Amino acid sequence: MTSSECRMDAASVSAIDDERLDWRFRSVPSSLWGLTIGEAARLRPDLFNSGFLAPMVVLDSRALDHNLRTMSDWCAGHGLRLAPHGKTTMAPQLFARQVEAGAWGLTCATAGHLRIYRAFGVSRIVFANQLVDPAALRWLATELERDAGFEFTCWVDSVRAVELMTEALRDATRPVDVLVELGADGGRTGVRDEAGALAIADAVRKSPALRLAGTGGYEGALAHDATARSRDTVAAYLRRLHALTIALADSFETEQVIVTAGGSAYFDQIAEELTTGWPAELPVVPVLRSGAYLTHDDGFYRRISPLGAHPRITGTPLLRSALRAWAEVTSKPSSELALLTLGKRDISFDEGLPEPRSYQRSGVTAELSGHTVTKVNDQHTFLALPPDSPLEVGDRVCFGLSHPCTVFDKWPLIPLVDGENVTGFVRTYF
Amino acid sequence: MTSSECRMDAASVSAIDDERLDWRFRSVPSSLWGLTIGEAARLRPDLFNSGFLAPMVVLDSRALDHNLRTMSDWCAGHGLRLAPHGKTTMAPQLFARQVEAGAWGLTCATAGHLRIYRAFGVSRIVFANQLVDPAALRWLATELERDAGFEFTCWVDSVRAVELMTEALRDATRPVDVLVELGADGGRTGVRDEAGALAIADAVRKSPALRLAGTGGYEGALAHDATARSRDTVAAYLRRLHALTIALADSFETEQVIVTAGGSAYFDQIAEELTTGWPAELPVVPVLRSGAYLTHDDGFYRRISPLGAHPRITGTPLLRSALRAWAEVTSKPSSELALLTLGKRDISFDEGLPEPRSYQRSGVTAELSGHTVTKVNDQHTFLALPPDSPLEVGDRVCFGLSHPCTVFDKWPLIPLVDGENVTGFVRTYF
Repeated sequence: MTSSECRMDAASVSAIDDERLDWRFRSVPSSLWGLTIGEAARLRPDLFNSGFLAPMVVLDSRALDHNLRTMSDWCAGHGLRLAPHGKTTMAPQLFARQVEAGAWGLTCATAGHLRIYRAFGVSRIVFANQLVDPAALRWLATELERDAGFEFTCWVDSVRAVELMTEALRDATRPVDVLVELGADGGRTGVRDEAGALAIADAVRKSPALRLAGTGGYEGALAHDATARSRDTVAAYLRRLHALTIALADSFETEQVIVTAGGSAYFDQIAEELTTGWPAELPVVPVLRSGAYLTHDDGFYRRISPLGAHPRITGTPLLRSALRAWAEVTSKPSSELALLTLGKRDISFDEGLPEPRSYQRSGVTAELSGHTVTKVNDQHTFLALPPDSPLEVGDRVCFGLSHPCTVFDKWPLIPLVDGENVTGFVRTYF
Repeated sequence: MTSSECRMDAASVSAIDDERLDWRFRSVPSSLWGLTIGEAARLRPDLFNSGFLAPMVVLDSRALDHNLRTMSDWCAGHGLRLAPHGKTTMAPQLFARQVEAGAWGLTCATAGHLRIYRAFGVSRIVFANQLVDPAALRWLATELERDAGFEFTCWVDSVRAVELMTEALRDATRPVDVLVELGADGGRTGVRDEAGALAIADAVRKSPALRLAGTGGYEGALAHDATARSRDTVAAYLRRLHALTIALADSFETEQVIVTAGGSAYFDQIAEELTTGWPAELPVVPVLRSGAYLTHDDGFYRRISPLGAHPRITGTPLLRSALRAWAEVTSKPSSELALLTLGKRDISFDEGLPEPRSYQRSGVTAELSGHTVTKVNDQHTFLALPPDSPLEVGDRVCFGLSHPCTVFDKWPLIPLVDGENVTGFVRTYF
């Protein structure tokens, strides 16, 4: 598992374009109903004059292209294979773009997501979690048997998980590759100490159903900002992962050894800590699993990304925010407050509230400053207005968002825009 | 608008059963792929031994039936018409159950939702918001023209909204009925004072596109608990709404006058304040818009509902919580912490975290106490374990949830269960 290119089933991906638009897609103009997604995209409808309903979330295609290329180039230049975390978007069309841009594989979060990846033929999947559900494991075994080109690896962080997997996979014809997941106190999953890790590795080696293929973990569960202290915590964790991999050097059962970490917050440190210092005889493949880099954001990742507002990587273009929401002012009950058609069911609110950027009235867009979102309800946004606010009922406001994962999961279909033209639609499956 | 029964298009609703199951529905067993929703339901698969993947959210069909009947009976007995807020579930099959149970209409939140209601032929819709989007208004006008039996009313809370609606509806053949929305300082939408309300009513009367059909508002934006102080705030607001309706008595342009309020937190007070004290000549139809009553919950609504854990209504059976989540323990990195396959993308977290209730291992279910969810990530739940916790990796844990609205929007298909048997599937559209 590591040599060939990652593949997807191009026919399944392009079949998305054949789905017909209708009332299920809540921002799509009713004038496009009955057309396929592909037909609608070829019309290049105008975002503001074609009847798109607010609220809507759109993806800036130029920012997306830029981020794809930037991250692909950066990983290639820093000795990292990229297995983008697909959970962020759950959009096979974007997976395909990532694979085209050179992704080594795709990272997957859940058993349900795994079936979606396989429906689109993703050939190399890093399942960055434990997988102990017997039904999911049996289904995985049939997929591995059906498709000799399918490469899969998941994590184990307990001997009990090894036992449960071995039991569920007792009839499997191909072994399942697993990585020992290292965690840390105060973190999330992952075995906490080296002794535990060695015991797990030992259990894996004894299991007829599993092969030990490397190590992994998630530094993003240990810190939540880019302070020196947080970065030290991350570095210490990555060094433990490095040391554990070396301690397990004689235990790996695969030709190459995967060592994987990395969300979108500390990938500079993944390159620093996991691409060097390996014994010559240990065939390590360092794999980065960032997902949010693809759209970046105007909040959490803007603050924390090494290619964000406070860059820690130099000589590489910064990531650009590709996600925006548009909503309408429907009420201005006082001079200090406007209510907009945007709610918890439309946008993320878990890592910061939407940030107003501009507004549009009668086809003219203008910057907006001094306005602050103070609260979101299920279907409303509360916007605090400055004394000189130009906003009136009927205006459309553009928002930057924070945390792309909890935006994508609210939209089955997201227009791709180039300026004011819709150039495509991205279908998500949640 | 008020006399006939609310109707839906039965053929469209039952056509939901013809949709084929596949990988798009993330908890559905792969063994059911290829079957239609209706065929799968007729198999009555066992929830625990048929390969349903965790995480999964299920609806208790007996609790649902009970809540449907309870609220329907209570409204009928207290002089209220019920227009359940469909935004909670966005599930046409449940809308149909509510209509069968005697709902007078359905309440709707957004322009996108409105198109979904109409795709299922909902004949009477209270749009409990302003609607100023020109494309949405033009589409509404075509629906009103196409279907003489379609009754619609929405809110206005500014003269500017009246002007925008009038402009967008200049070619409409049927007038759009509107209610003046009354708000309150510190609240959400709604005109803040009587003078403003009278000016809006005057503008509506002068608009060729609109008819003044009543008054409305949402007391739930003014309070968030059931303390005496909050209930006083709600009562004061409802009395202002009552007084405003009387002040506008000569302005209404419809045969009957809708007065509407009510989420699922203070419906006892809606009955008290809005069903009595009307002048004999004012043909008031008091309309309650509760939505969350249908599933109730194990958090926010359990605390605040008049038929919840601290009931303020006597002589009526209490509502029952109908939503549950099941997730798997995949990691227990220390004796104090377990991680489960349940995250922000699976369940609500905005009005309280999931509450563990029981667990299952090898087909045996047992109660679980002393366990507390401390955090949820995108795809993980952190469960703090007591010293004697029986939980091990591989166990499934059942959770009660808080705030149904932000649960439904994460699941396109939700199994209906009777005990451990799946008896149907509820399809949602978000």
